[in-house]
Amino acid sequence: MSLTETSSSKCFGGVQKIFSHDSKELGCKMNFAIYLPPQAEDGKVPLIFWLSGLTCTEQNFITKAGAQRAAAEHGVAIVCPDTSPRGLNIPGEDESWDFGSGAGFYVNAVVDPWKKNYRMYSYVTQELPELVFENFPVLPDKISIMGHSMGGHGALICALKNPGKYKTVSAFAPICNPSQGQWGQKNFSGLLGPRGSGDNDLWAQYDATLLLKSYVGPPMDILIDQGAGDPYLHELLPENFVKACQAVNMPVVLQMREGYDHGYYFIASFIDEHIKHHARYLKA
Amino acid sequence: MSLTETSSSKCFGGVQKIFSHDSKELGCKMNFAIYLPPQAEDGKVPLIFWLSGLTCTEQNFITKAGAQRAAAEHGVAIVCPDTSPRGLNIPGEDESWDFGSGAGFYVNAVVDPWKKNYRMYSYVTQELPELVFENFPVLPDKISIMGHSMGGHGALICALKNPGKYKTVSAFAPICNPSQGQWGQKNFSGLLGPRGSGDNDLWAQYDATLLLKSYVGPPMDILIDQGAGDPYLHELLPENFVKACQAVNMPVVLQMREGYDHGYYFIASFIDEHIKHHARYLKA
Repeated sequence: MSLTETSSSKCFGGVQKIFSHDSKELGCKMNFAIYLPPQAEDGKVPLIFWLSGLTCTEQNFITKAGAQRAAAEHGVAIVCPDTSPRGLNIPGEDESWDFGSGAGFYVNAVVDPWKKNYRMYSYVTQELPELVFENFPVLPDKISIMGHSMGGHGALICALKNPGKYKTVSAFAPICNPSQGQWGQKNFSGLLGPRGSGDNDLWAQYDATLLLKSYVGPPMDILIDQGAGDPYLHELLPENFVKACQAVNMPVVLQMREGYDHGYYFIASFIDEHIKHHARYLKA
Repeated sequence: MSLTETSSSKCFGGVQKIFSHDSKELGCKMNFAIYLPPQAEDGKVPLIFWLSGLTCTEQNFITKAGAQRAAAEHGVAIVCPDTSPRGLNIPGEDESWDFGSGAGFYVNAVVDPWKKNYRMYSYVTQELPELVFENFPVLPDKISIMGHSMGGHGALICALKNPGKYKTVSAFAPICNPSQGQWGQKNFSGLLGPRGSGDNDLWAQYDATLLLKSYVGPPMDILIDQGAGDPYLHELLPENFVKACQAVNMPVVLQMREGYDHGYYFIASFIDEHIKHHARYLKA
């Protein structure tokens, strides 16, 4: 697969790059960002995937979170995909800020007209990792995943649906139980169809709180930071996820941060702790 | 003067806020950003002014530089104004990216139709500081100034034209000798008129390299970081400034950073060092 480098800037001794490529899963051109720490000049390094929230592109995290400093310190790479397919001219794709473009929700859609292209789950767990392993000095068996809001949901489900693939997972203000919130319900209805039951309950296969019940794999040390002043708490429902973790003895730490909201100033304030958490497992 | 708070987010234990106000100097509504570190809850803190570059608003530095972490650590506030008056409907104000809106160049214009409003020098050295001192827990006798590119020029001239007012000054990739570069010549011509001579050489009164010759005041420990891979080096001319400093025994450190460009990934990589430099003089 061919990559086109669209920007490259030295940053904290490493390099922050953006690439575009033609995605087979999504059927469109996609951008992703990769930060390579200085250690990547001398050998392969571990890799953290970052999944962003509603309305974001591959740019938000790399410009606003200030993660490169800690990534350089710990010698880990970070890859950030865009949050949905782009420019497909699907009717309705640009009509609302929380559905369609910028809102892939990290699922594989099964409903027309979305199912052909809205396959962000396969993109972020298969196509993008393979592309990155082929083209950059990263260690395929030392990867982990984190994200924010919709991307926190994405990180949790990717980790829970692929036991052992990711060494750890963390999230900022993740949508923890999308079946129970308006954002999740709107996107699951639109992309997955009406909620089914039993084996036909596709929603449950993309809901972190529900996935926990069927998780079989190594315990993961899950780290969640949540602003206590976040105006979207009713969409996020971290307490549901923590209860579900406790029920199955999954280690989880939920750090409620007094006064913090849902935005990147919150993420920047605690990103160092998250990267340190990931580095601990990636370099073990 | 009345301030309107337009946003507020907790960040590294302090708070990042944006305000708007009606500026008398500029004759329009202006936004500025202020970061108050956690220490400002218990008393007055020192203050650094940050001046941004061409095309920027009050947002660029606060979202991209990652300065709040070090500001919180050292207990200093940071104020970031916008880079020009806005929305005045002056003919030509929005025709080029490097003149008019987003390009106030930190001078007081004397040429019509700009001279009524394009008074960024007085705004950033007088009106804005007074507004900030009146409304926030900062120490008026513990202030310093820094900036980037056009704003690095702004920081250097503000410090050199007001001996003793700022405890120190630093800059990232500043336009050091604007009389000799195309950006400077375009803006000086447009805002100050054709270059005069002797006492009528208004350009020299806003050119850091030329101002050094007439500086009478305490020596300042000037810190400059410059990307060696910066594509705009021919506009910036740091070597001219350093030579002029050496001629008058002004302490200056110019750190040429191999491989770094002109953007915020460069600034973010070294902002900690600059804030530490300022804190050393602000807290002395």
